[in-house]
Amino acid sequence: MKPLPSYGDVLKASERLTGLIHRTPVFTSRLIDERARATVFCKAENLQKVGAFKARGAMNAVLSLSDADRIRGVVTHSSGNHGQALAYAASVAGTSAIIVMPDHAPKVKVAAVEGYGATIVTCAQSDRDAVVEQLVAETGRTLVHPFEDPMVIAGQGTAALELVADIAGLEVVITPIGGGGLLSGTTIVCSENGIGAVGAEPHVVDDAARSLRDGIRYPATGSLSVGDGLLTGIGEAAFAILSAHGIEILTVDEEAILEAMRFVVTRTKQVIEPSAATAFAAVFANPERFAGRRVGVIVSGGNVDLARLGSV
Amino acid sequence: MKPLPSYGDVLKASERLTGLIHRTPVFTSRLIDERARATVFCKAENLQKVGAFKARGAMNAVLSLSDADRIRGVVTHSSGNHGQALAYAASVAGTSAIIVMPDHAPKVKVAAVEGYGATIVTCAQSDRDAVVEQLVAETGRTLVHPFEDPMVIAGQGTAALELVADIAGLEVVITPIGGGGLLSGTTIVCSENGIGAVGAEPHVVDDAARSLRDGIRYPATGSLSVGDGLLTGIGEAAFAILSAHGIEILTVDEEAILEAMRFVVTRTKQVIEPSAATAFAAVFANPERFAGRRVGVIVSGGNVDLARLGSV
Repeated sequence: MKPLPSYGDVLKASERLTGLIHRTPVFTSRLIDERARATVFCKAENLQKVGAFKARGAMNAVLSLSDADRIRGVVTHSSGNHGQALAYAASVAGTSAIIVMPDHAPKVKVAAVEGYGATIVTCAQSDRDAVVEQLVAETGRTLVHPFEDPMVIAGQGTAALELVADIAGLEVVITPIGGGGLLSGTTIVCSENGIGAVGAEPHVVDDAARSLRDGIRYPATGSLSVGDGLLTGIGEAAFAILSAHGIEILTVDEEAILEAMRFVVTRTKQVIEPSAATAFAAVFANPERFAGRRVGVIVSGGNVDLARLGSV
Repeated sequence: MKPLPSYGDVLKASERLTGLIHRTPVFTSRLIDERARATVFCKAENLQKVGAFKARGAMNAVLSLSDADRIRGVVTHSSGNHGQALAYAASVAGTSAIIVMPDHAPKVKVAAVEGYGATIVTCAQSDRDAVVEQLVAETGRTLVHPFEDPMVIAGQGTAALELVADIAGLEVVITPIGGGGLLSGTTIVCSENGIGAVGAEPHVVDDAARSLRDGIRYPATGSLSVGDGLLTGIGEAAFAILSAHGIEILTVDEEAILEAMRFVVTRTKQVIEPSAATAFAAVFANPERFAGRRVGVIVSGGNVDLARLGSV
């Protein structure tokens, strides 16, 4: 494992990213507040470049490369937002990216990655690590892992950094957790600022919740969830960071995620993806934890199929 | 017909409304700009109170009442955003509202109006004018017409007033047209500021386009459109204002409206209603008119059924 990122790394990331990604707005909603019985500040990463917070970590990782590494380019595996984010970051930083995607990746995601000028290599899901390793060995490209890379984690932390700067008196910040990059970066920032951090995870893929409760890093459950960005097991780096800070994960069931998504989209007119809805669902379901408090929610992204949005 | 509103009326409306409704943000999108080959500034009335610009006009009308009239309350007929807007305005201004709705009004809209504390009277669609007249006669309430009332038109103009104040060098502003309150208020503001104004209308309900072309106020076509807020025929006041300024209406077909809605929602993560998409569709379809220019779009609202959003 590489050295874990520090608060200083998040501050440096924030400087690097200025002007290259959006400083996203914070939205509020009387109806969300009424339902949560709290004052909720929503950091709108659905309005971030590529429609998700992943632009932060990928951009920070690419900008942290040495000149020599930048010339050789980057590679990652992703069927989701991280692939688009790395493709976008590479295009902005003037380097090249190869994104390894599963054979069955939706056409719209393939098109989005191609739109940023990245090269796509497809393979069976089970071969992806081997394919990436081979590409690294053959081309000298740097692997930018979606959540183990310390510069990715530091980059994800910049969303919370902006939120804390914009909103005085926050008491707790919640983010969804898949691999744990976003929650780790958020925890580093919140801890430094005397603010609580907590994660939200679909109950059917609750490896992170159990891992942090038991102090054992469990593998992903292998189940599917509507929170399709959160299927990954908790990473090694995230396990270390979140354990060290005693972070807890709240789990929510599938119906609650869909209901929270419907609630937030219809009330706020913001398109949010199911992973983001997971955090709202956890706030709504745990008043003993959030009621009466000033709560930050990192709205992780807004990349959702319209047909799915209509079916909830 | 009551006297037509002036630019001064819009300025007064803007003062009255300060702090009572949202000064909505303006969003931009590289992908919208690329498609339109223009620089497009989107005034986000989907984020307005009650999810639509209608809050402006209704609030201005209620706040313009004499004390005696305010005590007696207001009444209107509406199955859509204006009903919610008037109910909201009445609750803020400390007066009471009766909203006459058709028998078949969707439950969600009825619930929204009730949520603002208004009284609902239902009747057959064909009886609504008679029912409203009777309520006015019996209760002394003031009818706040959705688009003929000069204070409503002046209130709707405040969206364009804010847009012009926020964005330097605008060349043209486009809004959808149903009864014409929004486009009339926008035209009054644009004309005073040396900026063009233009309307967008579904082709199947093109009475406004034909009326302004021929100089004859035609009735509504009676057809249905996905732009369900735009089925009303052009009002008397709007016909007078828009004719005097030589305003043109661009028409777009149903498929183009749905496609524009899908495009804007997926690219910007903003929920917009089909009426709002009509304006984007017109911009996309008429590059000879918009390409290379600084274009304002009044995004009229975001009240759309999620199931409909998913089916486009």
